[in-house]
Amino acid sequence: MIKLIFNFNSEKSKKIKKPKDELGGKGANLSQMGRMGLPVPPGFTISTKVCDLFYKNKKKLNYKIINQIKSELKIIEKNVKKKFGDLKNPLLLSVRSGARVSMPGMMDTILNLGLNDKTVIALSNKTSNGRFAKDSYRRFIQMYGNVVMGVESHNFEELIENYKLTKGVLLDTDLDEKDWDGLINDFKKIIKDKTNKVFPQDVYQQLLGAICAVFLSWESNRAKIYRKLNQIPSEWGTAVNVQAMVFGNMGNNCATGVVFTRNPSDGSKSIYGEYLINAQGEDVVAGTRTPQYITIKARKLAKVKDISMEESMPKVYLELKKILKKLENHYKDMQDVEFTVENNKLWILQTRSGKRTSKSAVKIAVDMVKENLISKKQAVLRIDPNSLDTLLHPTLDEKSEIKVIANGLPASPGAASGRVVFSSEEAQRLNDMMQDTILVRIETSPEDIQGMHAAKGILTARGGMTSHAAVVARGMGRPCVSGSSEIDINYEKKIFKAFSLVIKEGDIITIDGSSGRIILGEVQTVKPQISGDFSKLMSWADSMRKLKVRTNSETPLDTKIARDFGAEGIGLCRTEHMFFDEERILSVREMILSKTLEDRAKALTKLLPHQKKDFMEIFKIMSGLPVNVRLLDPPLHEFLPTSDRDILEIANVLKIDIREVKSRISELHEQNPMLGHRGCRLGISYPEIYEMQCRAIFEALAELKNKKIKAAFPEIMIPLVSTEAEIKIMKELVVDVAKKVQNEKKTSIEYLVGTMIELPRAAIKAKEIAKHAEFFSFGTNDLTQTTFGISRDDSGKFLNDYIDNKIFSIDPFVSIDDGVEDLIKIAVSKGKKQNKQIKLGICGEHGGDPKSINFCSEIGLDYVSCSPYRVPIARLAAAQAEMKKNKS
Amino acid sequence: MIKLIFNFNSEKSKKIKKPKDELGGKGANLSQMGRMGLPVPPGFTISTKVCDLFYKNKKKLNYKIINQIKSELKIIEKNVKKKFGDLKNPLLLSVRSGARVSMPGMMDTILNLGLNDKTVIALSNKTSNGRFAKDSYRRFIQMYGNVVMGVESHNFEELIENYKLTKGVLLDTDLDEKDWDGLINDFKKIIKDKTNKVFPQDVYQQLLGAICAVFLSWESNRAKIYRKLNQIPSEWGTAVNVQAMVFGNMGNNCATGVVFTRNPSDGSKSIYGEYLINAQGEDVVAGTRTPQYITIKARKLAKVKDISMEESMPKVYLELKKILKKLENHYKDMQDVEFTVENNKLWILQTRSGKRTSKSAVKIAVDMVKENLISKKQAVLRIDPNSLDTLLHPTLDEKSEIKVIANGLPASPGAASGRVVFSSEEAQRLNDMMQDTILVRIETSPEDIQGMHAAKGILTARGGMTSHAAVVARGMGRPCVSGSSEIDINYEKKIFKAFSLVIKEGDIITIDGSSGRIILGEVQTVKPQISGDFSKLMSWADSMRKLKVRTNSETPLDTKIARDFGAEGIGLCRTEHMFFDEERILSVREMILSKTLEDRAKALTKLLPHQKKDFMEIFKIMSGLPVNVRLLDPPLHEFLPTSDRDILEIANVLKIDIREVKSRISELHEQNPMLGHRGCRLGISYPEIYEMQCRAIFEALAELKNKKIKAAFPEIMIPLVSTEAEIKIMKELVVDVAKKVQNEKKTSIEYLVGTMIELPRAAIKAKEIAKHAEFFSFGTNDLTQTTFGISRDDSGKFLNDYIDNKIFSIDPFVSIDDGVEDLIKIAVSKGKKQNKQIKLGICGEHGGDPKSINFCSEIGLDYVSCSPYRVPIARLAAAQAEMKKNKS
Repeated sequence: MIKLIFNFNSEKSKKIKKPKDELGGKGANLSQMGRMGLPVPPGFTISTKVCDLFYKNKKKLNYKIINQIKSELKIIEKNVKKKFGDLKNPLLLSVRSGARVSMPGMMDTILNLGLNDKTVIALSNKTSNGRFAKDSYRRFIQMYGNVVMGVESHNFEELIENYKLTKGVLLDTDLDEKDWDGLINDFKKIIKDKTNKVFPQDVYQQLLGAICAVFLSWESNRAKIYRKLNQIPSEWGTAVNVQAMVFGNMGNNCATGVVFTRNPSDGSKSIYGEYLINAQGEDVVAGTRTPQYITIKARKLAKVKDISMEESMPKVYLELKKILKKLENHYKDMQDVEFTVENNKLWILQTRSGKRTSKSAVKIAVDMVKENLISKKQAVLRIDPNSLDTLLHPTLDEKSEIKVIANGLPASPGAASGRVVFSSEEAQRLNDMMQDTILVRIETSPEDIQGMHAAKGILTARGGMTSHAAVVARGMGRPCVSGSSEIDINYEKKIFKAFSLVIKEGDIITIDGSSGRIILGEVQTVKPQISGDFSKLMSWADSMRKLKVRTNSETPLDTKIARDFGAEGIGLCRTEHMFFDEERILSVREMILSKTLEDRAKALTKLLPHQKKDFMEIFKIMSGLPVNVRLLDPPLHEFLPTSDRDILEIANVLKIDIREVKSRISELHEQNPMLGHRGCRLGISYPEIYEMQCRAIFEALAELKNKKIKAAFPEIMIPLVSTEAEIKIMKELVVDVAKKVQNEKKTSIEYLVGTMIELPRAAIKAKEIAKHAEFFSFGTNDLTQTTFGISRDDSGKFLNDYIDNKIFSIDPFVSIDDGVEDLIKIAVSKGKKQNKQIKLGICGEHGGDPKSINFCSEIGLDYVSCSPYRVPIARLAAAQAEMKKNKS
Repeated sequence: MIKLIFNFNSEKSKKIKKPKDELGGKGANLSQMGRMGLPVPPGFTISTKVCDLFYKNKKKLNYKIINQIKSELKIIEKNVKKKFGDLKNPLLLSVRSGARVSMPGMMDTILNLGLNDKTVIALSNKTSNGRFAKDSYRRFIQMYGNVVMGVESHNFEELIENYKLTKGVLLDTDLDEKDWDGLINDFKKIIKDKTNKVFPQDVYQQLLGAICAVFLSWESNRAKIYRKLNQIPSEWGTAVNVQAMVFGNMGNNCATGVVFTRNPSDGSKSIYGEYLINAQGEDVVAGTRTPQYITIKARKLAKVKDISMEESMPKVYLELKKILKKLENHYKDMQDVEFTVENNKLWILQTRSGKRTSKSAVKIAVDMVKENLISKKQAVLRIDPNSLDTLLHPTLDEKSEIKVIANGLPASPGAASGRVVFSSEEAQRLNDMMQDTILVRIETSPEDIQGMHAAKGILTARGGMTSHAAVVARGMGRPCVSGSSEIDINYEKKIFKAFSLVIKEGDIITIDGSSGRIILGEVQTVKPQISGDFSKLMSWADSMRKLKVRTNSETPLDTKIARDFGAEGIGLCRTEHMFFDEERILSVREMILSKTLEDRAKALTKLLPHQKKDFMEIFKIMSGLPVNVRLLDPPLHEFLPTSDRDILEIANVLKIDIREVKSRISELHEQNPMLGHRGCRLGISYPEIYEMQCRAIFEALAELKNKKIKAAFPEIMIPLVSTEAEIKIMKELVVDVAKKVQNEKKTSIEYLVGTMIELPRAAIKAKEIAKHAEFFSFGTNDLTQTTFGISRDDSGKFLNDYIDNKIFSIDPFVSIDDGVEDLIKIAVSKGKKQNKQIKLGICGEHGGDPKSINFCSEIGLDYVSCSPYRVPIARLAAAQAEMKKNKS
């Protein structure tokens, strides 16, 4: 017969090939610790294969399994010198589920199994603690009644509450042994009432019932939904762990605790943890008693007098220390270990990889490489790229007390405090007076760029993770909470409401762009410090990756930051952001409102030197690296004034009637600007605009060359192409201007011309488009919008309904959706078929998302591009993606 | 050596397999007439193959070809007893191009070739008309100088104009022989000046130059562009026709004319045409003399005294009549024939299929089947489906004089006159007073539906062929001119400007929705009459097609019209249009503005009986046929009031503050409503709305069944699906309501549930979606919008630039674009892979476009659906598509 039950009692415990598959995560670790000779309370794991047999056998355990369980139980009894169901020295058991991966929705643990009306007396005698024994018994009945027999928890809770009311006490701890005796009877009665079954006194019946309950929980609705969302196959099944109970609360030579092999908050290499003498695991968590430190060092550092374990139980402490070292050496990772001391004997209940802060994760990984515990590759793979975000931005001081007044989307990481302002002008005015502000807008538009720069943080009521506010804030490295439907802004009254609370202009709030929280008042923030460990880890990652990482940037400041963060060029330089500068916006408006080609040309001539200067600066900062410049993209009406004052100003400049300006503005209005007169459609209608931009680029390059300054290598990108004809016509325009400038300046300039692939048709027709494009850059923001037919700016209204209904497991504007992926794959394959040498990159927001970066690596893109502050994340994610690719 | 030149001089002229391929259209007909023994002026055709050789031989004719040309020329000389270049009786030639299909952009004709300073004297003597001879000579120099030698026409025209100024006369006819003599010298001089070459006196040099010019014109820019747009392969090449000139102006026994074998305006079977005695072809066209009728019957009918050809040249007339019959019998189509009588000898210069009105096209096709000339299939294939439009709508009386004041897009066919109104309310008010109106709006919105019904026609300044105005107007059968950027509307002043003209409210205008013209004042219109011939033709078409034709309709009136036009069900019943009815809109608004589920449910309860009634009526009219009902699609804000009066009204009904209503309206505002909270996204957020609609459908069916009235077969369509989860959840909702109603009403109802495929992601993920969909209906309007990223409502701003730049050869909202086609093909193939039985249709505007219908037939859809007035067009197009499919 096949072995289906494995004990973890000794070094001789059977080692199996794929322990996690067969024993589950918990079982595998227990088995490993057994083999290492560590003091694990004896027990056994029922294999995941039994779960399958259980369901095939009409949800029953067959007699062979039951016999195996009974014989394994005998071994435990021998081992601990107690007997299951014994009336003098009863063996109590814990029964726990354990799938390959930790899975919410499944039964967790039943403790103290083996107690009944008789064995509870034995326990009481053994511990000389009647109250403890009865309390344990009632807890067991409650757990068993709920999990195994299906009586809802509240039934038991209500009985306790009523009893306390009658007795006139508040806390459970106010109840004594006799009180529990009464409640035990009530509990048994309610089980009888609700299930028409008696709570089993037979300990074997208890055990088999608990094991079956674990298997049944594998197919509970919650577990099924979790599996579906996380793509866990239903065939995996769960294992069941049955283990002897040990007690840390049988006197002062007993204790219980939790310990980390290293410090999880700063990563330093010293044991860190808490313990309690004469206590059970629950007590450490419950907070009724203050836990004590494990080591003298930690106790002294914390300036605490309570004696440490190192002092109170020096021998046990030394044994624990040795075990911790063994465990870390074996698992090659920082461990989180639960232990119990029963009558001076140390028992290790559980070990697992410990949770840690981002900072300590980096330190631990780098230290372990130094200690030859892990390889550089393992170190790089061990860090969650997204966690780096907190290392690069100010974060809320975790010690501060905070009052969250509303929540929104975590649109751009970092925390900031400041006075509430409702307009960009006010943000600028206060900024000039050295006051910090938070710009609060229903939504932002390109007109707000200056104000967003001036503010310390941005909060919007509308718009998703890739709304204008979110994209721009991330680009600038400003914290941003977007799309908070919980706030209600009234510009007129200069207030916003968060539920019943009213916040006025000038009030101070704090936003946490990493969590989406909006907090009343000022909260201390912690500035990021980039450590040597971080740099080391990043340099390892760089040596492992193939995918290049560029940045999306258009200002010299951002470009500088990005290069410092390791950006290898610019993947998207949005030229329109350059248009909003105060000096230029008037010329831009003049250009747009011109009626004739001549007037437009005149206005464009004014803009030329500005754009040229912008490009010269950026090309210098990115010298030697590629810079991808996207020609004008947004619909022209985005640049037009909305306030009467601004309209009057432009009317005066143009010397035309204000009504005519208004009428022209209303003419340019669009129903769906996202699908309107923008991108290369502007270049087709007004080639003179693109000509000016190309001239600015080429003249900047020529001037740098003549000054012998090493410049960047330009790539000129045509936006929103959907047909072959568009890219063909636009490429001719670029080549034409390049020729002219080269002739005029008597120099030669190298450059590429290519296009964004950001419309489904462009992906479908990539073969034809690739005839004229030297590169494709996937604009996945717009591609996601058009593929789904969802506007980022409007999705806030139903995104929550979609996540509630599990239609989206993740916002498709955060990680590339698989439908969009299909289109990208089509484009890559068709583009390469036409032009093997075509350069491929991504410049949508997804370029900074690790999951999406993995996809980009899989399909063989050349680079990803993301906002400056995400560059390190992308570098790490790219390295991990490369390793995953080599593995598979 | 291969034969490359073919003469058409006799019955023995060589017959070749694919005459059009080798001889071009014109040459093939000349050759055919030659073989039929008809009196064709002798000549020969240089094969299209020579065109290829010409380009391969460095754009020169090789000596073998030249020798063949010369020997063919000898045969002509013999035949007509004239000699090329002869000083007494010179042979003159015409040289004409002739590709397989008629192609603008290519050289057309050079006449009178063979004239030089000497032969012109011979011609003058022969015709006893010196002025005519000199005029012919100068025309020849002018044509040759331009076409062969490349001197721009205006050079010659300017010389004539200057000369007339000096002489003080206005018309060319005021110039005499001597005047032309002088100009001939000037012409020769200007050729010398411009080209540095002498106008050739050698007639052979003239001939070879003209032939080469024809070949060269095949690669002219205009010809290349035309070929590209019409997908004509460049390899086809052109043929050249060289033919002896005959003269209808050598005396009173000469004449020239054009004749149709049947009447092209009404299709009646009688010869119809015009001729002029002692005249050249040009004179018939120029209008300097009034042409006379061919037959006595026609002359009498027109009450004209001028003698007919039947009377003036009875023998020649009889010969002509016989020839016409022969030609029609041979070509089995109505022919348009050019002839010349030279000294009582009849010559047939050309024959081709004659242009005809839509009405006569139908009559001729049906008559020819009766006459056993053509088969029913040929008759069906011969009618352009789009031409039926004019048969179904009122058209402008062609005899009226009209003043076009502006142009727009021909958005919905038909013509209408009425008083200009600028609001739907005014349209209704005047309608109540029995006054006809034209509703003039910048653009229309669903709020205008009532006004559009009340008006006789709709004119908009914005929006394309598939804008709201266009779609709704076509659905209603109202004429509509949309997107007229030439008009400038001012609602405040109640005027619109068309260039400098100002039209006030109340002024009468006429719009022609078939041509896009906007006309001042009232124009007589001709009402359509559906003839028996039309019905016969349609019944033949029906027997030949497999593709079903449904209609897009939501009112009983439209549904009735569509069924009368032969619709086989409804492909798209837009339930939202039912919401705009005056009785209901208030409940709709109440439902939208409700804050709680309970209030919303209350408002929905009020709407239920209305929707149920709508469905009952439609299901009765379409009894026995499928009716596809689309659940609510547009974003809710489309239903909200915009005027203060309406806002106040709803505030009173809801008993809430008007400011709160306004704030709720502004909350519902969307940046890009096309990509917003609409379609099934509403069903996910507010399932109670879809539940009400499904209940209305099922209760309507149950009631009809209980009353034993045969109902339609319902298909319930979920709009704007992009993920599998959406259709799954929505299908469950429908099935759930169906079960409930069936239980309540104790009946069973058959129905299908399916989805629109109108988003790229839905096409890409069709396999997953088909798991839950029993049908797909391609919503190609939205699919085109999202595939291209173009909003129909905003495309007007750049569509012209796109057509000017040849980026679009056709508006992709009119005929399905090939990128969109690729997505549809993906969806069909993936959908069928999942579910072989899946029903497939199209309900976008393209469902009424013949080119798109052909595509639908090719990829195997089950049905197309279009607006009621396009149903006959679709039936015919579907039959033609089927025949094309069987052919290939």
